[in-house]
Amino acid sequence: MGNAGTLVLLRHGESDWNARNLFTGWVDVDLTDRGRAEAVRSGELMVEHKLLPDVAYTSLLRRAITTANLALDTADRHWIPVRRSWRLNERHYGALQGLNKADIKARYGEEQFMAWRRSYDVPPPPIERGSRFSQDMDPRYADIGGGPLTECLADVVARFVPYYTDVIMPDLRVGKTVLVAAHGNSLRALVKYLDDMSEQEVVGLNIPTGVPLRYDLNAELKPIMRGGSYLDPEAAAAGAAAVASQGA
Amino acid sequence: MGNAGTLVLLRHGESDWNARNLFTGWVDVDLTDRGRAEAVRSGELMVEHKLLPDVAYTSLLRRAITTANLALDTADRHWIPVRRSWRLNERHYGALQGLNKADIKARYGEEQFMAWRRSYDVPPPPIERGSRFSQDMDPRYADIGGGPLTECLADVVARFVPYYTDVIMPDLRVGKTVLVAAHGNSLRALVKYLDDMSEQEVVGLNIPTGVPLRYDLNAELKPIMRGGSYLDPEAAAAGAAAVASQGA
Repeated sequence: MGNAGTLVLLRHGESDWNARNLFTGWVDVDLTDRGRAEAVRSGELMVEHKLLPDVAYTSLLRRAITTANLALDTADRHWIPVRRSWRLNERHYGALQGLNKADIKARYGEEQFMAWRRSYDVPPPPIERGSRFSQDMDPRYADIGGGPLTECLADVVARFVPYYTDVIMPDLRVGKTVLVAAHGNSLRALVKYLDDMSEQEVVGLNIPTGVPLRYDLNAELKPIMRGGSYLDPEAAAAGAAAVASQGA
Repeated sequence: MGNAGTLVLLRHGESDWNARNLFTGWVDVDLTDRGRAEAVRSGELMVEHKLLPDVAYTSLLRRAITTANLALDTADRHWIPVRRSWRLNERHYGALQGLNKADIKARYGEEQFMAWRRSYDVPPPPIERGSRFSQDMDPRYADIGGGPLTECLADVVARFVPYYTDVIMPDLRVGKTVLVAAHGNSLRALVKYLDDMSEQEVVGLNIPTGVPLRYDLNAELKPIMRGGSYLDPEAAAAGAAAVASQGA
């Protein structure tokens, strides 16, 4: 087994747009007070489980960055190195960004709604450049031509997994505990890779907000236990059910 | 002159122990609500002056890290890369850490008090290893043998300037705007280097909390204007006077 590293996956807590049931994607909304409390609770769970990160990775989005900041501050690990990348961002929701989930479901029907939300390889229509909820003029994405205009989960796998293998895995290889503070779909992409899930399997995977998910890795950096373990399994089960029912 | 970079120096806002008039040094105290408001105001000043950092450097201490987090979040620059180092930490105050400034002044007299606070090369007595306000067992300093047991300003210059020249200057050389979120004495050490101050001169230098200090650099990475410029000169003058009178 060796002394390989430990991954701590953390989906950000409730955001303003989660609370309003809007498709968010790359729109950079803030956490709600409840989302902040979830982040603090995540830090408390890390302390209770003696699972203290040595290094943190975040997306470029405020809701993941603030979640990491609050959790790490609570766990007295605010001082660890942090690296940020757009490759950890939420899936870009294309033209759906800024629209209400229930409206979209009513307008396009259950089947199309679920295809956009949960299919592996069906992206929503692309967002219009320069439109209100587009990020193509955002300076943080200038290096990547403004970023994608829409993404399916397969696109997220294709952009995040190489970052995981090339940038994050070296930290794990030397035995570090690595916090990955990210989003529902970027974490689904990572878990698909870690647990070697099929495209069908990952469609049914829901990751709850604000509950750290621990993966202990063996010397080959494979999970010792498939699926990992949530630091608060009860809260995680309730949270996953809530995610699954969104748009209802 | 060339298009060399811009430095933005930011001393953290009021901390719990500033408010209680205690020597802090490497003790990792939090900001007060006033200190948090100062950090947010710093971010607003950056926006008003269109001075948006491309990269941030912080110490390993919560009061500087939180100041950077709040200021950058306010300026919509929460997503920039950040690097942390103990080399930006406040001066270690040795055995004075945790003690009241007015008490020390009353007990040891004005001359000794000012020598410990403001002389260039007189360190306070070393702190006892393992004592209440020592950091020698703190995991964040494990790589440097627990860190120093006391420091004078000359020691801070010796540990911070090489980091500035070797790590921070390459970012400036390519034209970046660099935020340095740090502490009264680590910023005094840096300003001494930037402005090529004598040891006598730096003794009289006071840097106010929570007001960004801007240095535009020429192609040789020398300040175009000695002393730089505060984004809010009035607040800076008031703040510097307040620092100078501490312990009174």
